[in-house]
Amino acid sequence: MNSSSKKSALKENDGIDQPEAISSSSIQQIQKLRRKQPTADDLITAILKGDKIALSRAITLVESTNPDHIEKANQVIQGCLPFANKSVRIGITGVPGVGKSTFIEAFGKYLTSIGKKVAVLAVDPSSSISHGSILGDKTRMEELVRDENAYIRPSASGESLGGVARKTRESIILCEACGFDTILIETVGVGQSETAVHSMVDFFLLLNLAGAGDELQGIKRGIMEMADLIVINKADGDNITKAKLAKTEFNRALHMFPAKSSGWNPSVTTCSAIQKTGIDTTWQTIQNYLFVTKENSYFETKRANQNQYWLLETINDQLKNHFYNNSEIESLLEQNKKAVQNNEKSPFAAAQELLKKYFK
Amino acid sequence: MNSSSKKSALKENDGIDQPEAISSSSIQQIQKLRRKQPTADDLITAILKGDKIALSRAITLVESTNPDHIEKANQVIQGCLPFANKSVRIGITGVPGVGKSTFIEAFGKYLTSIGKKVAVLAVDPSSSISHGSILGDKTRMEELVRDENAYIRPSASGESLGGVARKTRESIILCEACGFDTILIETVGVGQSETAVHSMVDFFLLLNLAGAGDELQGIKRGIMEMADLIVINKADGDNITKAKLAKTEFNRALHMFPAKSSGWNPSVTTCSAIQKTGIDTTWQTIQNYLFVTKENSYFETKRANQNQYWLLETINDQLKNHFYNNSEIESLLEQNKKAVQNNEKSPFAAAQELLKKYFK
Repeated sequence: MNSSSKKSALKENDGIDQPEAISSSSIQQIQKLRRKQPTADDLITAILKGDKIALSRAITLVESTNPDHIEKANQVIQGCLPFANKSVRIGITGVPGVGKSTFIEAFGKYLTSIGKKVAVLAVDPSSSISHGSILGDKTRMEELVRDENAYIRPSASGESLGGVARKTRESIILCEACGFDTILIETVGVGQSETAVHSMVDFFLLLNLAGAGDELQGIKRGIMEMADLIVINKADGDNITKAKLAKTEFNRALHMFPAKSSGWNPSVTTCSAIQKTGIDTTWQTIQNYLFVTKENSYFETKRANQNQYWLLETINDQLKNHFYNNSEIESLLEQNKKAVQNNEKSPFAAAQELLKKYFK
Repeated sequence: MNSSSKKSALKENDGIDQPEAISSSSIQQIQKLRRKQPTADDLITAILKGDKIALSRAITLVESTNPDHIEKANQVIQGCLPFANKSVRIGITGVPGVGKSTFIEAFGKYLTSIGKKVAVLAVDPSSSISHGSILGDKTRMEELVRDENAYIRPSASGESLGGVARKTRESIILCEACGFDTILIETVGVGQSETAVHSMVDFFLLLNLAGAGDELQGIKRGIMEMADLIVINKADGDNITKAKLAKTEFNRALHMFPAKSSGWNPSVTTCSAIQKTGIDTTWQTIQNYLFVTKENSYFETKRANQNQYWLLETINDQLKNHFYNNSEIESLLEQNKKAVQNNEKSPFAAAQELLKKYFK
């Protein structure tokens, strides 16, 4: 309709129709979406009922960097906490190629077959670069993924190991509240992630292969020292003799380490994840460990210490972040780093200059 | 003289004679003392001339907690820095009883006999409790103490390893500026002090004994992994065969560690500090090490990295001190520690609460 066709002394050109600020269809969509977003209480209730979708949503909140999500995640964790902790947490490590996925699938299936509920998490700080080298490809655990008593979640991504580790550790609480009584935490056998995982599990399992006589090469001492059990995988076919020899070698090497404060003597077993042999022995060993460490209270003490460790670790991390991400500090630090490297300033004088600036 | 004896209408009682605010003899004493306190520039000049008394005074300033002394110490260090760094820094460790003092005396005397100037420092955080277990009793190094080309300084005391390590590290700079070209830093073979010493020396020497077949027992793996040379002491008399056997064992053990980024293959030698045999071999090995690592630039890179390490380490230490010594934080931290140990709060939620308070 053209207003100029009206019979009127006043002529006014038509404006262009303005669209509504928000279209009604958008409003409907948003409302629908909002209805779909469960509250923290909704999530807690669902998780406690064993709802895996709610569990996944809560873990997504834990992994988020959005302040609202973090707030909500904290509420969910706080609500789940009284129902968590009733589980055994098992760390599993081993260098790439050792067959971790196959082992976890076989071990997980065995556990669900004897009535356990199994959650599989991972700590892999490299996953944000490699797009999930661990557990990223769920098809590697086809059977376990379809098992209704199993829950598999790939490693959180993040820039720092500290961040990834925090997310995994909070996810453990959520999984436990959701009824999972056996938590497997996978990590790659290279570097600092092992220490992080070791400080969040009850039992640490090192997966290994029988090699060509030099089994001890290539495995970091520190990782061997952390292990409560070494499992030599691929003990099948022609490999059985080699695996048995490796078992003897590893046993001898373990013997050289000082006694553990857990009162537990680490041992070595063999298995074939593909042929599903030796899997029950692994579980039996873990059962023995739990018996020993619950009897001597080490189990409980260790968990309390781990909680305290993460409290202090988080504080220390954040204190450092706050300092090193300060824009004024950043440029001054670069100058000072150069000065101390060139012996123009003592490291302590340089540190004092920076700290004076920071605390001014 | 009594004023009342004066012929006068006005009678006034005598007051008691007041002593001068500061007696003239005190003033003289203080003035004398002030004259004796050299300025930072005085100290620098004297140190650069090789004056051991000035060196000791400067180290005392470095060890002081008095802010004026710290300020002055920093000036002296800054002035000495351009003349430091021209030395080899050797860390020496070994469990108590291995004969460290005897070895250092024999080694030090050998070094001065070939024209070296030797400074012996120590890192022993326990010394404040045990009143100087290392080097505290200088009579243990009677000959070296009287040697004009040697300088021996017991471990600084302090509450934290970080503090003790800082003081030792700054003392190295002063000793070098004073003309000492070979710095020996002693520490006990138990715990964290080794890591601190390792990060301030060019070469790390582990002193050991031949035992009853179980040489590897009791030595922390981490310490063996740090060693550039293992010296088996007390290879004399009936002990020679055992020492040779131990040498073979240690060589085999060293072989199991991954290759070092220095390009240097750690080795094992035997010596008798009491009979002064094998001491020259030790020095020859260190010379070889210096040749290899100066050739491949590792020596220089390591020192630059060590400077940067101490810069960051000092910052991180101070950030923590500032937080944990905050009186408001202290009590809140205790509450939160208990809460996380009892699973009433997640470690991360507790950390956030504390950090919010701190950064408010």
